[in-house]
Amino acid sequence: MKNLVICGGSGTRLWPISTPEHPKQFLPIFNKKSLFQLTLERNLPFCDGFLVILGQKHLNLAKKQVDASEQIDFIQEPIGRNTAPAIALACFAVDEEEILLVSPSDHLIGADKYYRKSLFEAEDLAEKGYLVTFGILPTYAETGYGYIYAKGEDVLAFCEKPDLKTAKSYLDSGNYLWNSGMFCFKAGVYLAELKKYAPKIYEMAKIAYDNSTNGLIDMDDMLNIPKDSIDYAVMEKSDKVKVVPFVGKWNDLGSFDSLFEVVDSTQSIQIDSNNNLVIAEGKTVGLVGVKDSIVVAQGNNLLVCKKGESQRVKEICDKLAGK
Amino acid sequence: MKNLVICGGSGTRLWPISTPEHPKQFLPIFNKKSLFQLTLERNLPFCDGFLVILGQKHLNLAKKQVDASEQIDFIQEPIGRNTAPAIALACFAVDEEEILLVSPSDHLIGADKYYRKSLFEAEDLAEKGYLVTFGILPTYAETGYGYIYAKGEDVLAFCEKPDLKTAKSYLDSGNYLWNSGMFCFKAGVYLAELKKYAPKIYEMAKIAYDNSTNGLIDMDDMLNIPKDSIDYAVMEKSDKVKVVPFVGKWNDLGSFDSLFEVVDSTQSIQIDSNNNLVIAEGKTVGLVGVKDSIVVAQGNNLLVCKKGESQRVKEICDKLAGK
Repeated sequence: MKNLVICGGSGTRLWPISTPEHPKQFLPIFNKKSLFQLTLERNLPFCDGFLVILGQKHLNLAKKQVDASEQIDFIQEPIGRNTAPAIALACFAVDEEEILLVSPSDHLIGADKYYRKSLFEAEDLAEKGYLVTFGILPTYAETGYGYIYAKGEDVLAFCEKPDLKTAKSYLDSGNYLWNSGMFCFKAGVYLAELKKYAPKIYEMAKIAYDNSTNGLIDMDDMLNIPKDSIDYAVMEKSDKVKVVPFVGKWNDLGSFDSLFEVVDSTQSIQIDSNNNLVIAEGKTVGLVGVKDSIVVAQGNNLLVCKKGESQRVKEICDKLAGK
Repeated sequence: MKNLVICGGSGTRLWPISTPEHPKQFLPIFNKKSLFQLTLERNLPFCDGFLVILGQKHLNLAKKQVDASEQIDFIQEPIGRNTAPAIALACFAVDEEEILLVSPSDHLIGADKYYRKSLFEAEDLAEKGYLVTFGILPTYAETGYGYIYAKGEDVLAFCEKPDLKTAKSYLDSGNYLWNSGMFCFKAGVYLAELKKYAPKIYEMAKIAYDNSTNGLIDMDDMLNIPKDSIDYAVMEKSDKVKVVPFVGKWNDLGSFDSLFEVVDSTQSIQIDSNNNLVIAEGKTVGLVGVKDSIVVAQGNNLLVCKKGESQRVKEICDKLAGK
């Protein structure tokens, strides 16, 4: 099994510590390691090689963070077209019988016995020709994720991000799992299903891959591939999908509110203040009368955000980018 | 009349824009001018000379901010001993018949017809041998200031900082004025009253002044002068005190809450946020879900403070100083 690491994060949701030039998967904020490095570390015991698909401009950043002795192939996208094309490009790069463990590079996942168990289960199903998705057992009624309605290993439906009431009913039922963005399948099975359900993506991705040099995709070829996610393009349509539940530690770090749970605050001086996350390496931070807040300083950029509202941080990036 | 400008602020209440090395009176935050410069500008039409008393380490800072053509004498204190000694040192430096307008350097005062009227009234009374204090007509029930209980020009009592209930009754009565820290008197009258009510300060300040060279007071001499404010040492005891009410614009800028009213926010990107003061020259600031807050960034220092609690900012400085 090879590990396909998807490094396409755009870096707008954790501004200002994450930026388009330096997205969060490359930030060394977990004991000086990045999420990208932790992803490789976590999968190394289970995989005999790595494929990393990333933005062309991040290649040097990524190379600096990996051990030169590891077997790592890079595919560079000049522009992102979402996950269905990215995964297709990687599948063309390996033998069709090769099993790929597809993992986002920017999630924090516990590398424990639960992870190991889920991986073996997924690899077995992939070997049998299934497209396997990993479902996270929900721990609360999150409205920001899609859900998978499952019965054992069978997927009954993919569900859009629910409202709070629906999310609560999902949580209570016990049959709904968070859609994790992790997958496991044979390259050939994915490509066959992609060809069936999204033939234009398949066709254009094949041309783009065939024209590429040293893993670098041409800009025009890339722009010819329709944008779509693997969920919409393949998983929600294919009848070869199975789900493996994962009950270990999982955090998608999609916002400062998720970071709140896992990152230690920089030292700060707090007067009449509590329940704050402060990330401001190398700065002196004083808080007075501040509660339930996220304070982040990086270089000349500064964010103050109420806990629970950090999903809206990307709006700041949009405004900064003049959108 | 000469203007005695008192520049002894310690710079802990507006951290991080104000610091012990760069206290608030020297910050160019009002159309690129400092409060110190605004004080000189405001009093120039009424005074034929300036005496500036300041910490020795701030001499160069002050000199850079003044026009070399102005008649300004500096008295440098190696350490602060509060206002009664500082004013005494200045009084020894001028003729005893000289009228001194004593003004803090770090208040924001409207230089309008009300100011002019109060000044002429005070100068008249000073000419007659009175110690004149200026009383600000309160605009709300402030608990952070001392009050002057007055009947016309006569002072009936000096009152300590009141609790909120008392402050409200002061406001309602109309006979209570905020103690502004501005005074006007003949140098000789102040020294005579100081000699009478605080003879040790008088005596030690005289020695310190006589031993000084080019306005620089010796450290040991300075340490020999007891610390006290002009209010405690003289004004509350003397029977030569008169008060002149001042109804113009006045703001002591003693905290970020006072600054809130008079300083424009640096440009910032605010999402679902309102009623915030942002001072962060040269930084990009994003706020999400932040209300009624003060956000200040200067160099590598950062403050976030709830509006209404900025009196406690000095506690951060105390902690930084290891107190």
